[in-house]
Amino acid sequence: MLARVSSTPSFKRLPRAVREQQMLDAAVKVFSRRGFHAASMDEIAEDAGISKPMVYAYLGTKEELFIACLHREAARMMLTIAGAADPDLPADQRLWRGLRAFFGFVGAHRDGWAVLYRQARGSPPFATELAAMRARLVEVVAGMFDHALRARGREIAATELEVVAYALVGAGESLADWLADHPEAEPERTATRMMNVAWLGAAQLLDGVTWRPPADD
Amino acid sequence: MLARVSSTPSFKRLPRAVREQQMLDAAVKVFSRRGFHAASMDEIAEDAGISKPMVYAYLGTKEELFIACLHREAARMMLTIAGAADPDLPADQRLWRGLRAFFGFVGAHRDGWAVLYRQARGSPPFATELAAMRARLVEVVAGMFDHALRARGREIAATELEVVAYALVGAGESLADWLADHPEAEPERTATRMMNVAWLGAAQLLDGVTWRPPADD
Repeated sequence: MLARVSSTPSFKRLPRAVREQQMLDAAVKVFSRRGFHAASMDEIAEDAGISKPMVYAYLGTKEELFIACLHREAARMMLTIAGAADPDLPADQRLWRGLRAFFGFVGAHRDGWAVLYRQARGSPPFATELAAMRARLVEVVAGMFDHALRARGREIAATELEVVAYALVGAGESLADWLADHPEAEPERTATRMMNVAWLGAAQLLDGVTWRPPADD
Repeated sequence: MLARVSSTPSFKRLPRAVREQQMLDAAVKVFSRRGFHAASMDEIAEDAGISKPMVYAYLGTKEELFIACLHREAARMMLTIAGAADPDLPADQRLWRGLRAFFGFVGAHRDGWAVLYRQARGSPPFATELAAMRARLVEVVAGMFDHALRARGREIAATELEVVAYALVGAGESLADWLADHPEAEPERTATRMMNVAWLGAAQLLDGVTWRPPADD
């Protein structure tokens, strides 16, 4: 009897937060498999093992559900990056760990986040959400840069920080796209390549200088 | 009489190529002012001083016309960049001139290309066209990098070249977006900022090393 009870968990006893995560898991799966337009709320509800009216009651329309998926996945990505890029590390290792976490996340979510991200980029209401997420990521990167500058007793204007951060985020986004298109590519190696461009710069690359992860990493 | 003739040019005598350019000029103006969906073929025809059936006969449906606009503007941009980045220049000056031409183009076309580009990015059929254009730009940048490496008697794998080029194109695209949103920002200064990130790299920036255009430029 116990075995039976645990394999068919009581629907009513699940806390709201857990149920919402189940719906979001199902929604991410269905949206990335079918695309936003072809995805049906029936399939999402069925996959989550929840009635369709319950999905609507918890997370709203299909559009709202898609935005909730974007928010959750983006929040997970930001947490992964922020958790990896410990502010006490030297700037290069902080950038390296942040990049490794970022490309690691993209590589591990090629069928989830990467697909949602591309769908969102192609549709105006979602593109606005993405722009807001990108702006937050730019702020985080600018903050990391500012922190490293202050540690060196230096400061640069906020606009300059913002521009550097936009360039780095744009480069990262472009390589994340490349990684999503190349299933054979390794996320960690992609992070190293990005370090070579972003940390060393083209001048040093052309002269054969290369950046390598610390040996103990 | 002569004055009258020249101020009302004979419609029939214009060569097809000239007439097509007039239609494209009108289409770029209307698409960027109204957006793809709200733009009407009537307004484009009227602005070009040509009948609507003639616009359809020459350039096809509204969608085909939009793609023709994208192609022409992208080709102009590529020509501007390629013309500026003389292969006989040292690599840093070549990159600098290419970037200055790129941001100069974006800055001068804030109301045309920048708007079309963003509209296209937001809609799946056009996004595919843009991806193809971006792939060509990546090839050009990878080619510049390869050329500079060979001049130093070095070589790197095609994948590595591609990755560096994707990172640089992504950084450039992100800053072009930033420039389009900041009407007060100077294109040339944006190109210098990008040189500081892409040529010198974050490590040197943090140490206060800065890249400046050559004095005679």
